[in-house]
This record gives sequence, C-alpha cells and structure tokens, in this order.
Amino acid sequence: MHIDSFMHEAIGEAKKGLSEGGIPIGSVLVRDGKIISRGRNRRVQEQNPMKHAEIDCLVNAGRIGSYRDTILYSTLIPCYLCAGAVVQFNIPKVIVGEARTFHGAEKFMREHSVEVVNLNLMECIEMMGRFIRENPELWNEDIGM
Amino acid sequence: MHIDSFMHEAIGEAKKGLSEGGIPIGSVLVRDGKIISRGRNRRVQEQNPMKHAEIDCLVNAGRIGSYRDTILYSTLIPCYLCAGAVVQFNIPKVIVGEARTFHGAEKFMREHSVEVVNLNLMECIEMMGRFIRENPELWNEDIGM
Repeated sequence: MHIDSFMHEAIGEAKKGLSEGGIPIGSVLVRDGKIISRGRNRRVQEQNPMKHAEIDCLVNAGRIGSYRDTILYSTLIPCYLCAGAVVQFNIPKVIVGEARTFHGAEKFMREHSVEVVNLNLMECIEMMGRFIRENPELWNEDIGM
Repeated sequence: MHIDSFMHEAIGEAKKGLSEGGIPIGSVLVRDGKIISRGRNRRVQEQNPMKHAEIDCLVNAGRIGSYRDTILYSTLIPCYLCAGAVVQFNIPKVIVGEARTFHGAEKFMREHSVEVVNLNLMECIEMMGRFIRENPELWNEDIGM
C-alpha cells in the first residue's frame, strides 16, 4: 500500500469517530507495509480523556514488543501525550495529515530524533478546522486548554 | 491528609499490581486534599502497553475538566508517555516516590514548568529495584527498551 492509502484509512477512522459523536482524529500503525492496528479519538465515546487517536491505536496494537520498524499515521499532529508515547516507545517515524489547526508536539518529537512527515492535506485541515469551529469547548478539553 | 499518606496510597496501588502479576508502579490524583482517582500499571493484567500507572489513574479520573488544581503522585518518576500527559493536560505538580531506578522525563517536565518533588523513598527504590532485577525483560518492554 502507498502512504496515501494508509492516511486514507486514518481519515476513515476519523470520520467514523465523527459519526459516533466523537472528535474526528484517526490513526493507524503500519509495519512491513501493512496496517497492524487502527484507532480513533474516543474521549467522548468512552468518557476517557486519555483515548486520543494515537493512544487508542497503540492500545489496539497490543504488546507488539519493539516499535522500531513501525510508522504511526495520524490525521493530526500528535499532542504531548501521544508524542510522549512515540518518544518513549521509540517509534521512529510519524506521518501526519496536517499540523495547521493544531501545532502539537512536533518540535519535541524532532528533538528526540523522530522523523515527522507532514502531508498537509486539505481534507484533514478542513475536517478538523470545521470541528474546532463548531465544538470549541470539546476541542479545548481534549488538548487540556 | 499529609503528602506521605497520599504516597502511601500510591505504594498500596503498586503492591496491588505486583500481587496481580503486574509491574509495581502506583499512582493517585489529588484535588483539594482528597484522592479523586487511583491507578496502577496494568500492562500485564490488561495486555495494554499504554496502561502505565499514571495513565490508568488519569483514565480512572474521567473527564474532570481542568487539572490545574491537581497533584499527581506516582511511586516512580513518569516516563515520556506519562510526562506527556502531565504537560498536555497542565498538571502543575508531580510528587514521585523515587527517580533512582529509572530517570524518566524529569527534565522534560521541569522545562514545561511542572513542579517535580522527589521524595526519594527507600521503600519505593527497593520495591522497583527488586522488580527490575527479577523481571528485566518485562521492565524493558514497559519503557520501550
């Protein structure tokens, strides 16, 4: 599968979250060219403030041992919680749909030698931008503002 | 309650985890002088690599809104995953039992204006030191080594 196909799957997770009344952020974890887990933000669905998309995806992956040959995809640049997971578990590469509606912890990841690729996709920017405009309180809660 | 009492409760969580076959790290979240949630490392118990003690505690707290008047206690200095949660959700103060058996992300938290108090308790150092000596592979998995 191509990089765009993996991001397409992450976007699908984000849309699924939105349809459930959740925050539209999706994530997939890839190893050896295959998706090994999927996740989406479930703060609202599970009333769980730690269930950011990337954390949900890493929970769903289970105890996979080393993450050194994995790539984490997310429709939005990871916040410090999710970037902390990336750094702690030595995920070497993160590919994001966008970092415009939220700046996240990009610098922190780069400082810890994580390769961050920003696809800067209008589809992700518009999806997240619309959600933030329409649900500012929910979004601020999600990022601890 | 006194600071030592809160840490005593966190140690109790760590011991409970150990008795379940888990990694002995415990945590409590305090607001207005009261414990509002408890957690322990449940990687083994739930086969969940994101269930560090502090994350478990923050999951159990639920959607509490602002964390600005909370204090997070942990028997061990938080790793980047848990420190990332502390920084993202603006938990202003973290009190740890020890930072000797593992150095964690203390500098990262301080750089983000988190007050970190290290009680340097022999009970915590011995409990964790023994576990790491006896279970090096499990411990290395927990911290992504």
